[in-house]
Amino acid sequence: MISVVRYDVLGIGNAIVDVIARTEEDFLLKHGMYKGAMALIDAPRAEAIYEAMGPAIETSGGSAANTIVGVAGLGVRAAFIGKVKDDELGRTFAHDIRAAGVAYMTPPAANGAPTARCYILVTPDGERTMNTYLGAAQDLHPNDIDADMIAASAITYLEGYLWDPKNAKEAFLKAAKIAHEAGRKVALTLSDAFCVDRWRPEFLHLMRSGTIDLIFANEAEVHSLYETADFDTAIAALRTDVAAAVVTRSEQGCLVLGADGSEAVPAFPVERVVDTTGAGDLFAAGFLAGLARGADDRACGRLGALAAAEVIQHLGARPETSLQDLARENGLME
Amino acid sequence: MISVVRYDVLGIGNAIVDVIARTEEDFLLKHGMYKGAMALIDAPRAEAIYEAMGPAIETSGGSAANTIVGVAGLGVRAAFIGKVKDDELGRTFAHDIRAAGVAYMTPPAANGAPTARCYILVTPDGERTMNTYLGAAQDLHPNDIDADMIAASAITYLEGYLWDPKNAKEAFLKAAKIAHEAGRKVALTLSDAFCVDRWRPEFLHLMRSGTIDLIFANEAEVHSLYETADFDTAIAALRTDVAAAVVTRSEQGCLVLGADGSEAVPAFPVERVVDTTGAGDLFAAGFLAGLARGADDRACGRLGALAAAEVIQHLGARPETSLQDLARENGLME
Repeated sequence: MISVVRYDVLGIGNAIVDVIARTEEDFLLKHGMYKGAMALIDAPRAEAIYEAMGPAIETSGGSAANTIVGVAGLGVRAAFIGKVKDDELGRTFAHDIRAAGVAYMTPPAANGAPTARCYILVTPDGERTMNTYLGAAQDLHPNDIDADMIAASAITYLEGYLWDPKNAKEAFLKAAKIAHEAGRKVALTLSDAFCVDRWRPEFLHLMRSGTIDLIFANEAEVHSLYETADFDTAIAALRTDVAAAVVTRSEQGCLVLGADGSEAVPAFPVERVVDTTGAGDLFAAGFLAGLARGADDRACGRLGALAAAEVIQHLGARPETSLQDLARENGLME
Repeated sequence: MISVVRYDVLGIGNAIVDVIARTEEDFLLKHGMYKGAMALIDAPRAEAIYEAMGPAIETSGGSAANTIVGVAGLGVRAAFIGKVKDDELGRTFAHDIRAAGVAYMTPPAANGAPTARCYILVTPDGERTMNTYLGAAQDLHPNDIDADMIAASAITYLEGYLWDPKNAKEAFLKAAKIAHEAGRKVALTLSDAFCVDRWRPEFLHLMRSGTIDLIFANEAEVHSLYETADFDTAIAALRTDVAAAVVTRSEQGCLVLGADGSEAVPAFPVERVVDTTGAGDLFAAGFLAGLARGADDRACGRLGALAAAEVIQHLGARPETSLQDLARENGLME
C-alpha cells in the first residue's frame, strides 16, 4: 500500500494543564525559582507552591501541545500524542486540544499519578517562571506511539522536555524511527536552557546521528548546548550538527539556518508583553505551519513571529484570536 | 459579650468555577441560548455544551464570590460562604478565594454532585452568555451559615441566584435574620433579568418586608422586576420598595438611590471591552468597599465603575491587576 500524508504536523509532548498566577519578583526569590526557567517538581513541592501562589487561571498547556494547537489554528492538519490521566484536568486537556481541531487519540491512564500541571508565575515584566509536576505525563510509553499516525504525518515534532520522563524517551526514539522509515521529517525543540543542561550529550547525539532534521531553539538554549557565551560560535557549531535550525531571539526576531546559508527574519512589534508563556511554542507553530504550506524561510519565520506576538499579549499559552485571520490581515496567508 | 465587626463585607453565593470560551453569535442560536443571560442547566446539557464549545480557560467565579474577591482586593476585610465539593474544581475555588485574602471556611461536601461550573460563551462584542450547572452549590444548607461570622460582618451581601437552589433559600433567610439581629446591614444583587422573572414576587417581598437594606441591579433587572419598559417608572417603584439601591447602566454609569434623593455617577471609559463577565459583580465590589470605607455615594459609585472597568478588559470575572493600586492612581483611595 502507498502511505498517504494525513497530518501535516504531529506533535509529541508532555500533556500539561497550566495554572497561571501573576506574582512579584520576590516570590521567585523566596521560593528558590530561576526566573524564566522550567523546573521539575515533585508532589509535595507542587502542593507548597500552589498553597503559596495567588489566585490562578487554568488553561491547557504543554509545549508541543501549544505548538500543535497553533498549527491547527493556521489551518494545517495537526495531531498530538501525549499522556493524561482520566481525571478532571485530563478531560479538560483533551477537550481543549480536540476543540482546537487537533486529532488526539492517546488513551488516558486509568490509574497512577494525576494529570500533569505546571504552576506558572508571571512577573510584572511579562516573564514566566514554570514549575512542572509531570504526573501522568511520566507514563507516556512507546505503546502510545501510534505508528500509522506517525507514518502519515509529514513532520513529527518533539519537545526536549520529553527527555525528562524516562519512558517518554523511548517513545520519542520510536517515533523518530517510524517517521524516517516512512520518509518523513523529524523536528525537535530544545525546550529550555536547563533542560539542555540536563541532557546535552544526548541532544547532541540526536542531532549528529541524523535522528533530528530540524532544531528549534532560543539563544539561551544554543548557548547552553555549546557551553559558550558567544552567539556566533554557538551558531557555527549548530550549523555543522544539524541539517536545519531556527534560533529565536525575542524582539530581535529569528535566524533561519539551512543548507543554503542563513536568513535573519524580524519579529512583529508588540505594544505590551503581558505573559511570555508559549512564545517559543507559538513561534514553532507558525514556522511549522509555513513549512507545511510550502512557504520560504522568511515567510515561515514571519508566520512564527506573528503567532508568538499574539500569544504574549494575553495570559496563557494558547491563542485567543484566530491565527488564520491574523495571518491573512498581515498578508502572510491567502 | 459585645459583638465586634471583624469583616466589612461577607458574601454568600453559589461557589462556581467558570469555563470560558470565545464563540460566534451563531453558536448561541444553534444551542438555544439567550445572549447575555444566565441559564441553569442539568448534567447532560452541561456535557453537551462543553463537548460543542471551543478551547476554554478555567477560572474561579460565582457572582457574590467575584464581588467578595474584589472587595478584598480593595483592602477591605472580606469573607465568603458557599458550597463546593471536595474535588479538583472545589479545591481550585477554595485556593483562589483564599489566595485573594478572603476568609472562606465553608466545609466542602464529601459526597454528592461535583463542584458547580458555569460554561461562559463570550461573543466578539464582549458580551457573555452563561450556562450554570449548580452541582454542589445546590447543597448550601442553613447549617453552613456561620452565625458568628455573619454577626461579625458589617454588611452581608447575597446574590439573587441563591434563590434557585432550594436549600440555599433557607440559608439566605437565616443569614439575613442573624445580620439584622446583630444590627448589621443586608444587601442583595438581583443577579439576572431571568432570575428576577423566576422569583419576582419573592424578591419584592424580601424588599418590602425590610429583609434587604440595599439592592444592586442593572437596567434589565429593574425592568423585569416591575414588568415595565419605562426606566423612570421602574426607578420610582424601586425607591418606594427599598431603603437604598444602586442601578448600573453599563457605559452610562450608575444611579444611586437613597433617602436623600438620587445621584447619577459616570462610568470609566474603556478602550476595548474584551469580556463583560463579572462587570456587575465588580461594580458591587467597588461600591461595597467604598461603603466599608465610609465614602459618599459618588465615591462609592466611582469605585464600583473603576473595578468594573478593570474586569471587562480581560477574560474572566476576577481582577488581574491590583484594584487598590488602580484606585490610588485614580485618586479614589489614599
